[in-house]
This record gives sequence, C-alpha cells and structure tokens, in this order.
Amino acid sequence: MDNLALCDANNFPLTPITFLKRAAECYPYRTSIIYGQTRFTWPQTYYRCCRLTASLLSLNIRKNDVVSVLAPNIPAMYEMHFAVPMAGAVLNPLNTRLDAKSITTILRHAQPKIFCIDRSFETLSQEILHLLSFDDSKLNMLVIFIDETDFPKTISSSELNYESLIRRGEPTSSMVAHMFRVQNEHDPISLNYTSGTTADPKGVVISHRGAYLSSLGAIMGWEMGTCPVYLWTLPMFHCNGWTFTWSVAARGGTNVCIRHPLDLLNRSGPVEMLTGGSSPPSALVKKVQRLGFHVIHAYGLTEATGPALFCEWQDEWNRLPENQQLKLKARQGVGMLTLAETDVKNTQTQESVPRDGKTMGEIVIKGSSVMKGYLKDPKATLEAFKYGWLNTGDIGVIHPDGHIEIKDRSKDIIISGGENISSVEVENVLYKHHKVKEAAVVAMPHPVWGETPCAFVVLEKGETNQGVREDSLVTSERDLIEYCRENMPRYMCPRKVVFLDELPKNGNGKFLKPVLRNIANGLVVSDENTISSKIVQQHKEKRRVNSLTSRL
Amino acid sequence: MDNLALCDANNFPLTPITFLKRAAECYPYRTSIIYGQTRFTWPQTYYRCCRLTASLLSLNIRKNDVVSVLAPNIPAMYEMHFAVPMAGAVLNPLNTRLDAKSITTILRHAQPKIFCIDRSFETLSQEILHLLSFDDSKLNMLVIFIDETDFPKTISSSELNYESLIRRGEPTSSMVAHMFRVQNEHDPISLNYTSGTTADPKGVVISHRGAYLSSLGAIMGWEMGTCPVYLWTLPMFHCNGWTFTWSVAARGGTNVCIRHPLDLLNRSGPVEMLTGGSSPPSALVKKVQRLGFHVIHAYGLTEATGPALFCEWQDEWNRLPENQQLKLKARQGVGMLTLAETDVKNTQTQESVPRDGKTMGEIVIKGSSVMKGYLKDPKATLEAFKYGWLNTGDIGVIHPDGHIEIKDRSKDIIISGGENISSVEVENVLYKHHKVKEAAVVAMPHPVWGETPCAFVVLEKGETNQGVREDSLVTSERDLIEYCRENMPRYMCPRKVVFLDELPKNGNGKFLKPVLRNIANGLVVSDENTISSKIVQQHKEKRRVNSLTSRL
Repeated sequence: MDNLALCDANNFPLTPITFLKRAAECYPYRTSIIYGQTRFTWPQTYYRCCRLTASLLSLNIRKNDVVSVLAPNIPAMYEMHFAVPMAGAVLNPLNTRLDAKSITTILRHAQPKIFCIDRSFETLSQEILHLLSFDDSKLNMLVIFIDETDFPKTISSSELNYESLIRRGEPTSSMVAHMFRVQNEHDPISLNYTSGTTADPKGVVISHRGAYLSSLGAIMGWEMGTCPVYLWTLPMFHCNGWTFTWSVAARGGTNVCIRHPLDLLNRSGPVEMLTGGSSPPSALVKKVQRLGFHVIHAYGLTEATGPALFCEWQDEWNRLPENQQLKLKARQGVGMLTLAETDVKNTQTQESVPRDGKTMGEIVIKGSSVMKGYLKDPKATLEAFKYGWLNTGDIGVIHPDGHIEIKDRSKDIIISGGENISSVEVENVLYKHHKVKEAAVVAMPHPVWGETPCAFVVLEKGETNQGVREDSLVTSERDLIEYCRENMPRYMCPRKVVFLDELPKNGNGKFLKPVLRNIANGLVVSDENTISSKIVQQHKEKRRVNSLTSRL
Repeated sequence: MDNLALCDANNFPLTPITFLKRAAECYPYRTSIIYGQTRFTWPQTYYRCCRLTASLLSLNIRKNDVVSVLAPNIPAMYEMHFAVPMAGAVLNPLNTRLDAKSITTILRHAQPKIFCIDRSFETLSQEILHLLSFDDSKLNMLVIFIDETDFPKTISSSELNYESLIRRGEPTSSMVAHMFRVQNEHDPISLNYTSGTTADPKGVVISHRGAYLSSLGAIMGWEMGTCPVYLWTLPMFHCNGWTFTWSVAARGGTNVCIRHPLDLLNRSGPVEMLTGGSSPPSALVKKVQRLGFHVIHAYGLTEATGPALFCEWQDEWNRLPENQQLKLKARQGVGMLTLAETDVKNTQTQESVPRDGKTMGEIVIKGSSVMKGYLKDPKATLEAFKYGWLNTGDIGVIHPDGHIEIKDRSKDIIISGGENISSVEVENVLYKHHKVKEAAVVAMPHPVWGETPCAFVVLEKGETNQGVREDSLVTSERDLIEYCRENMPRYMCPRKVVFLDELPKNGNGKFLKPVLRNIANGLVVSDENTISSKIVQQHKEKRRVNSLTSRL
C-alpha cells in the first residue's frame, strides 16, 4: 500500500496564495477590494498581483528574500500578501504605530531587500532611512513608495513607485504557472515582529502550510460563509490581519479597505464582529450588541500564525438569559479546528489542569499552523517550544464544557501570600462599576504578602470633567476599594487605586503594564485608605493638559 | 530562514482522526450519535473508539493492515471510521448493495485481516465465506459480527462480537497518545472500491492528509456551521459518506444513524440537503424545495476522496426568479476550497476549454485530497493521473462565472455525425416532460451518423397504471420525439424511445448505461416513428409483474 508514489495530481503544497487564483476563477464578477472610489474585481486583483510578482522577480527578488512594508490597510498592502510570496519571497509587514527607532531595529534584523512605504509615512521613513545611514550592516535595500492608485504623486526619476511596478510587470504564462506552486509548504511566507514591550521585538517566521491552515481555521471558527464583506479595522500588519487577508480571498469576499477605521457602519444587514485578546468587559459587549453587532470572541498570537481559539457559538445559547450569554462570550473558546491540540497546563508539573473553570495554568497549543520559530534567535525559539508545545505565556482555565478562558499573561499574574491573583479578573470587576472607563491592575510590593494588587483607573468622561473636586476622587478610591471588597475575595482586592486620565498603551493598543508596574513599585502601602498625594498631583497636572487638548 | 527545524509543537501530521479527540474535549455535552434508543455523547464515542482500537491492536492489527466492514449506517460503522485508522490500519467499507460474488472479488484483492459484518447481512456473509473457502489465496481473515448495541445476540464461543471488543479493550494512556499522531500524513486511511460497472472494481487508496483536507473542504463548501445535526441517508460506505463521517466530528455535530432512510423528517427547522452526481432535474428540485428543503448540489468521486465541486450559493441569487435559481442549482459549481486546481480540458489537446458554458471537455482536478492511487493497479493509476491531473472521465463545461456543469461521463457521450451529444442534456429535456419519471439516453448505431441517441423512459405511475392502451404508448413515443424536436437541436433528438417499468441501476442507484447500450446495440433504426414490437412485448410483461407486486 506504501508503493503508491506522490505525483503532481495528488500532492500540492499547501499555501494560501492558491486562494487568489481560485477566487479569480470561481468568483470572476465579485468585487475583491473597495477603497474610496477604487473598485477591483477578483480577476483584477489577480492580474495586479501577477504583474507585481513579475516586477519583483525582475528586481532580482529570490526565494526567502524579505520584502518589508509600512502601510495602512490599503489595496497595495493587501496585494503584497499574495504578490510577495508568489515571488518566493517573505512578507514583513511593519507595525505603523512604532517609532523610527523601533522600525530601524526590525529592519536591521530582518535585512529586507525591498522596503515599501506608503506616502503618508514619508516623514517617518525619512527618519528611518536617516538612522539606517549610520548603520554598519550595509543594509542594501530598495525603497519603493506607495501612492494613491488614482493620484500618483509626481516622482523623481530615482524613486521607485508601487503602481509603476504593477504597470511594467510582464508575467509570462510559464512564470504564472510557477507563482502558485511553492517548492515546499514549510517554506516561510511571512515574518511578523512581536510588539516587544520589554525587549527587542522577535521575528516570528510563518510557513505557507501554517498560513493555509490558519486561514481555514479562522473561516470555520468564525463560520465565515461564501462571499462575505469584510471591513478592515484590524491592521493587516497585525499577524497578517489574523490571516483574514487570505481567508477573504478563500471565500471570494469583498475587502473594504480604509486608511483609518471611520464611521463606515451605515449598514442594513447584521454585522458579525470578531474581537481578540483578553475579553472585553461584558458591559461593553452589551452596549455594542445593542447597536446591532453580533460579537464573537477569539484569541490568538503572532506565534500561532494569528488565531488559535474561537468562542464557537452554539445555537442553544441564544435561548439563555443575556447575562449568561455575556459570560459565555467572555471566554476565548475552543482550539481552532486546524490546530492539532490545545491544553492548559500547570507550569510546574506540565500536567493538564482539571476542567473546573478555576485552576489556572498556561495555555499551550500544538499544530502545523504554529510558527516555524523566531528569526535568528534559537534560544527564544527553544524556550517557546519547550515540552513539545508552543507555550503561549497566557494563563487561563478550562471550563467543564471545554472552553478556555484567559485569566492573565503569566508575567501579569500577582502572587499575594502564595495565592495567584489574575489581574484580568480584578479588572473585570472594576469594569462593571458604572464610573470606570478603563482599568489596569498590576502587582505592587507589600511588606507582608510580597505582592498586592494596585489598580490604575480611568473614570468615565462625565465623571472627571464635571468639576470633580479632589476629595471626591479620594472618595472614589474608597468607593472602589469598598466596591471590590463586596464583589471579590478580600485577598484579591486592590490596596491602591490610582486615577489617570489615560493609560499608557503600546502600538497594538494594549496596556503597557511594565510602565504601570514601574509606577506601582514606587508606591508604598502605608494607610490602605489614603492615596499617595504625589499621584493625585500628577493626575491633576495631566488632567489639565488633557482638558486643554480637548478644548483645542 | 531555512534553518528553523520542524518540531513536535509546529509539525503535526494532518489526519481527520484528531477531530474525534477535539470533539470529546470541545463539545463534551453534545450528542455524537442518535440511533434508535441509543444516544452517545462525544466523550462516549471517543472512549468507545479508543477501546476498539486497543482491541484491534491486541488482535495484532498493525500499520497498513486492512479492516473490511459490511454494515449499514449504524454507530459501529461510524466508530470504525476513527478506531481503525487510530490503530494505524486502513478501513475498507464495502458497498452493501453488492452481491456475494462482487464482495468476494474485493476481499480477495484487499486481503483484509479482519472482516466486520452486521448481523443483518448474515446470509450474504455466509455466501461470501463459502465462496472464499474455495479460494487458493488463503485469506487469513478474522470475522467479527456486529449486533445491535442494546440486544446482543447470544453468540457461539468461536464467534467474535463487536461490542465485546469494545468492552474488553484496555487503552493505556501512552497507547492513546499514539493513536492520534499518525507517522506520516500520506499514510493510507481508507480503501474504497469503485462501483465497477464495466470491469472489476478498483481499490482507491485515500491518505490521512487527503481525508483531512476533503473533510474541511466539504464543511466550507456546504457552509456547515458549529454543532449541526446530520441525518445519514448517504451510505457511509460511499466514499466514507463523502468524508462527512469526519466532518461531523470536526464540527461537534450529531450523527443521526438509521438502517434504512425512513420518514424521519418530522422536523421544525429548515433542512439543508446536499445532492451529488449529475444534477437532479429542476422539476424534482422544485418539488423538494417546496417541501421545505434547501437543496445544494455537489459533485465528487471516490478518486477525489469524495467531494470535489460545490455549487457555493451566493446571497444575491436568492433575489433571482425561481427558474433562474433552478438553473444555477443544476450546476455542480466551483472547485472545493481545499483542492489546488480545477479545470475543464479538451481531451485531445489538453488545453483549457473557453469559459462559454458550451464547449465541452473533461473535468480534471489537482490537489492533496486526490487519492494516492489504485491498489495493485499501476496501469490504471498511471492512466488516471495522466498529464499531472486526476482525469475524472466526466465531461462538462465552464460557465463564464466559473461554475462547472457536468454534461456526461466521457464514455456516455454520443458522437453523431462528428458532433458530441451530451446524454445528460437530452435526459434533462425529457425530464421536463410532465409524463416522464425517469429517462436514460445512450448511443445506438446509425447507418449514416455512426451513432444516434436512444432514450429509455419510465413514465409517471399514473400514466402507466390507468389502463393505458398499447397504441397510446406508441403515441407517447411519437409525442416524446416531437417534444424533443421542439426543445433541442434536431441532431440531438432521440430516434428511438423505449418504455420500461424500471431502469436497471447499480449498487449506488446509478443507471447501468452499459446494459442499456447492449439493448440499444440490438435495435435498428428502420422507421423512425415505429417502436420495436419486441420491446413493447417486454414492457407489457414487465408491467404485469410490477402491477402484481404493487397489489400484494
């Protein structure tokens, strides 16, 4: 039975770039991209990509060469998700919220042969190129600017332009035949840098096989049917838009590209909304649902090629009372179908935790859509793959029905008197308070318990702008601590509440907990009900600046 | 970038048996199987399969050993789709409609180590075992009987029983860990014999990778959401139930198992119906839809590991008039997402046909879900994979919107005066006639044109049973030919119409066109409007027998 050889007919390397060819063939009249006044059909997107690939090949781009791109959610960004790997190269989408220094660090590490820059980032890119000019690494990199499709800027003869590459690309039919058959499905397709809040960002290498499986897993986890309309609010640079860049092509859908997520939602039909990361507070989900959105929760990480868990919604749950539904929605869900295994393990013993919805452990996953590893970082790769699993660093529980709920990042767990306290759980209680707009909880030192929770809170606008006096803030801290004592076990209650006008966030909009921990480390638990005057002072000054800004 | 090694965390062989483990973990409270009074949950199905696998291993079943099964759609049949490959073995589901001689031929070719037989096939199996006893090939095969779960028949000590295997299986945890990780995703999972109307059936070898991809492709092609209820009318022996055996586990659905497709459809919700093969006549689809079924059409073949094309339904089509919708539904659709490529090629030049909905060619597919090849038949394997594609032998057209429509089996095409006539197209016109219940068109010899169409027709019951006189049948032939002339080009019109009480069918319910061709070969085109009296005589005799039967 083993003597049946594999051949061209029955062994085709798995790659999501085949979705583009299929979309052009199977959905020839469907709109692929809507962007301002621009409309493309799938055959148009297909031809544009083939032409771009031909141009990249003529620029001497070869297998495993890196092509970096700094652009918002525009057609070019979408097309490069196909055209770059169709040339055998590796796409490196850069986080547009990073500063010049961080991007320079990434470029030095990734060593791209081409760097595509959207014209809106011209100033930033000049800064980057200036910083790179002092570099000894002799990064030999072609710079290509992306102008609006309809309004190409007059360019100097020395400048290469994205649209001109598409215009002058001349794909032959034998070239096209090669574009969609990758040599090996384990070859890299994309290089995505982690946000790196504490150290230099790590370069996650993703394979064609992984991207293919992840795209299919995302389609099924979210039940994305034929020909959906997909509004790009999630940045495509973020894990390749959670692999939905490829999933939308797979389903012959329409990509609605916008530079900035605007109020584009004058819609008639129902809107399916997918949220990721730690769960949004149920009060927020409630509000959003009442606006006509159906919210489904997912969880993923760059190292998993995007999505990993989906809160697969079951029909009967619609018959439950709203509050119970919101509880179910707060869970990240079950392992995506295309993953081989998902588990929550005790970090000490590596045993699976009991499925009691209480015992915390690290979420671990296994499967062919997990990254190949970190670029040029064997130590970090080994660490991530310890024990034969991808160790996500996220702490969660498994409920009796198999759904996983994230409790915290492992480094955000607060250990107080030997008890693990999930900062997310404390935050969730705070979010339920009607005056709380944002809350982040971190550890602060405690003379007896080692650590104790400290809460950083942003109050709802109305609460801070209507001439609130200082003592009412003090009252608010008392209130909040009192409120916490009523709503959670005593040992979990924050012993400090610090009010800020805004919380520090990283490029992906996540709270910068290391910054908050730094502040919390300087705080002392003296009298539990007195707030440090230093903080109040800071707060007052900050508020003033903010009020000023908001008036301008 | 290539120095990143594959490891346990990021490289898991693709196999649909992992769907079972995931279903037990992710859908622990969901019903996996309903069968009479029997109800299993996914964890129960999981444990039963693990126990059966342990028993198979203890019976010395090893990698690539074949396990044959002769059973209707009962829980045991479903469980074996997982338990057999979990032991590393290859499942060989037998067509229960075949006679003892055909099954004996298959068993001699497949050389199973175990043969599981549902008790309802005891007589058939005795005949098979009797035939095998004269065999020189010394088939060393263990026979295991399957009794009803609730009512095990008292068995002799020499007989092995399915439920006792499950009871006595003792899977250890290290054994279980091995059950779900196959050595190589290209290893065989199933051996399915083609129906073989003209020659000995061929043994199609299907891989774990192919079955995995096909199951996912079927889920997406049919938009099968989370936790569906799947009614088993399609026999599981037929391409592993088009791979839905595995797809239902992937989605945590409920398998409704029934021995005979009965009137089980007292339902409340809408029913999604998937039909396969050449398209059902639109009049029939219309009737079925008015009963509350939503019909979607697909196409597949054993060599493609089941499904290959799905008529993916697009929302806007719901706004078209019913007749236009029915036309769209008659098409087999677009290549399934998990196939690499689908095309229609001129059989002479191997060029793709134009997408005009008219030019006929052979449907060819390519991708990792295509069979590994035919067992012990390198010649047939080579022929099937000629030109680097799986040549399906089915003749079709591509419409401008990319949807493929099947026109005929290549061997059923009628070549009249050098023109290709699709027998299916002529049949479709006949089906639209209100008196026609079934129609099959084959070639008959013609002194001038080489071949000409000959139609075999079964009239609607009312038309034959209400004392129809012989001359009215003659009129009917004239009527039908006249009707055809009004509804198709003259060269396509049948020159003979033969009325039968029923058409000969194979085990899968397909018309046995070779039998009809044999009859047609004996017919002579003398006077185009006179029916051969021999046939009328046959018809009259047959009708009598049938009337008798229907009165009893």
